[in-house]
Amino acid sequence: MRCFRPVVFPLLVALVVDAQLLSLSDMYGSLHSPNFPEPYPRETELRWNVSVPDGFQVKLYFSHFDLEPSYLCEYDYVKVEAEGEVLALFCGREETDTEAVPAQRVITSPRSSLSLLFSSDFSNEERYSGFVAHYSATDVDECSDRTDEDLLCDHFCHNYIGGFYCSCRYGYLLHTDNRTCRVECSDGVFRERSGVLSSVDFPAPYPKSSECLYRIEVELGFRLRLQFDPSFDVEDHPDVSCPYDYVKITAGSSEFGPFCGVRSPGVIQTDSNVVTVVFHSDNSGENLGWRISYTATGSRCPVPEIPPNALINPVQSEYSFKDHILFTCEPGYRLLKDGEFLDHYQVDCRSDGSWSSHPPLCQKSDWWRR
Amino acid sequence: MRCFRPVVFPLLVALVVDAQLLSLSDMYGSLHSPNFPEPYPRETELRWNVSVPDGFQVKLYFSHFDLEPSYLCEYDYVKVEAEGEVLALFCGREETDTEAVPAQRVITSPRSSLSLLFSSDFSNEERYSGFVAHYSATDVDECSDRTDEDLLCDHFCHNYIGGFYCSCRYGYLLHTDNRTCRVECSDGVFRERSGVLSSVDFPAPYPKSSECLYRIEVELGFRLRLQFDPSFDVEDHPDVSCPYDYVKITAGSSEFGPFCGVRSPGVIQTDSNVVTVVFHSDNSGENLGWRISYTATGSRCPVPEIPPNALINPVQSEYSFKDHILFTCEPGYRLLKDGEFLDHYQVDCRSDGSWSSHPPLCQKSDWWRR
Repeated sequence: MRCFRPVVFPLLVALVVDAQLLSLSDMYGSLHSPNFPEPYPRETELRWNVSVPDGFQVKLYFSHFDLEPSYLCEYDYVKVEAEGEVLALFCGREETDTEAVPAQRVITSPRSSLSLLFSSDFSNEERYSGFVAHYSATDVDECSDRTDEDLLCDHFCHNYIGGFYCSCRYGYLLHTDNRTCRVECSDGVFRERSGVLSSVDFPAPYPKSSECLYRIEVELGFRLRLQFDPSFDVEDHPDVSCPYDYVKITAGSSEFGPFCGVRSPGVIQTDSNVVTVVFHSDNSGENLGWRISYTATGSRCPVPEIPPNALINPVQSEYSFKDHILFTCEPGYRLLKDGEFLDHYQVDCRSDGSWSSHPPLCQKSDWWRR
Repeated sequence: MRCFRPVVFPLLVALVVDAQLLSLSDMYGSLHSPNFPEPYPRETELRWNVSVPDGFQVKLYFSHFDLEPSYLCEYDYVKVEAEGEVLALFCGREETDTEAVPAQRVITSPRSSLSLLFSSDFSNEERYSGFVAHYSATDVDECSDRTDEDLLCDHFCHNYIGGFYCSCRYGYLLHTDNRTCRVECSDGVFRERSGVLSSVDFPAPYPKSSECLYRIEVELGFRLRLQFDPSFDVEDHPDVSCPYDYVKITAGSSEFGPFCGVRSPGVIQTDSNVVTVVFHSDNSGENLGWRISYTATGSRCPVPEIPPNALINPVQSEYSFKDHILFTCEPGYRLLKDGEFLDHYQVDCRSDGSWSSHPPLCQKSDWWRR
């Protein structure tokens, strides 16, 4: 007797809240209304909780559906829920403005479980045969579905039924996070007096999760000068100083950096012949990296005082380690060093910034005329 | 030394035929050339047999590929095979007219296994790093892939990971073949003197795998007459008589049929008041079925000899069970039966085809004038 329902309904709700509960955890199965194929009973609530393993979703659809129709499905209904959301509410025999029937619709759970609630009220005007539903676990393709960048594979993603794994391009190693691809980048020492070093793949984005140590070692007496390319891009943070990726330089007891951001550190003149460049990258970000051109300049020797009538070659404003000066005398003078007459005399700028010897003297060469 | 190869090659083939064999039967995994990421060794044959459970296919693709190039891949190569067929042959570093590299290609096995053969010859002109391949089991969607009609579900097909199952529309039952949908169609007896019976769903195709028994039972004394619709379609065979589906009729000791094909059996006049119609359908075919309209006609009584001056009503060319004849006399005559004078007299045609009584006589009614 539909006419009485509005009055009775709130009471009935109170009577049927304790739904019977059935748990389904197979990889597939079917479920149907009570007594199917006979008409379903009145005043019944029955809930099926369907759960499949992580890495799967639940796909649910109906092969038969015949419930009492009602405005907005307030009498008898099937409700599909997951994660506290209603995915679908069905009733009736055919789609209307106010009733949805499942038809060919396939409902997919957002995660690995869903719940189906069947509810019938105290009366039915006709005999309704109920429903038959089918569910199956369906594999989540993590490689194409994943939207959370932090869970993405750095290089290659390989989906399989129930999960996925990551792998790396040739030359890279999978980090222990099983996601990012690091490089082995700490071998090798730069011993040339000039050279170029850069983040791996520069100017393409550098590898993640890597700890690179570059060592430049030139002869004692040289001082290393580093010049960063203007193109510089290392992941930074607006407030915290280089918390993610950074370049750090140690030269003797001096430290430079950490550097990050997009402003090139420019030129760094060190006092050391040994420099280590440490580059750290974390497990995210796509930044282009850095490049350093280095040169080694020797220790400065003081510009020598030129003795009277002496000539030097080369004439420079500065002299540094490994530079030589050749002393000769003006015509009519002879070069005298340690009691000996010489045509020329060479002094070397030593690694400690001192000259290998004092300058010689030039003596008027008329002695032979005497 | 490529120049010598044509001479040496046949010998080498003989030397390397015993490929090492690796079996992979996990649901996913990866494989790579020997020594990877170091260059692969010379004169090596290595075969991986990948197999996954029935209901799955093997999907294989490469994330790294770098083999010695050669015309038609006759030197070093990777060959993918399944079911005795070569699915792919790869070599080189990039696609050419005569060499295929895997690139983004995904190879899917026709069934649940495939085999990958890696082969290197006696020399390499450069260092080649080899390959990395990944495989995974992928579910076969039997419901959409199946082409063999005999393995299809009759009504609904439900795929799940690793298999499928069938179910039936409301009102049907799944046959023990787990594939076809039968009906319960043997209950109920037709007792009316006329009626219509047909294959289930006529004129839509009748259910498979069903054994239907229809019984028509009318009063003793009636003879059942069956009339098949001109529209008749029961699965038949060009050579063998009705081996699949058939209609068979039993009426007393008489049998009619089996009937099948597309030619209606037409009218069947039986001598019995009880008829059984058996309809058998096998597990295949989409045929439209049959319909029978039946009527019950009584046993014939002989047309009575009309005594002189008698009248009968109704006058018919035939009389049968349950028919009556009312005897009256012409004006001026009186009806005499068993020594009594009557206005009229009724005889009934009985179930055994005899009249309930002999006809009465009509006597001139001038006796009262005497």
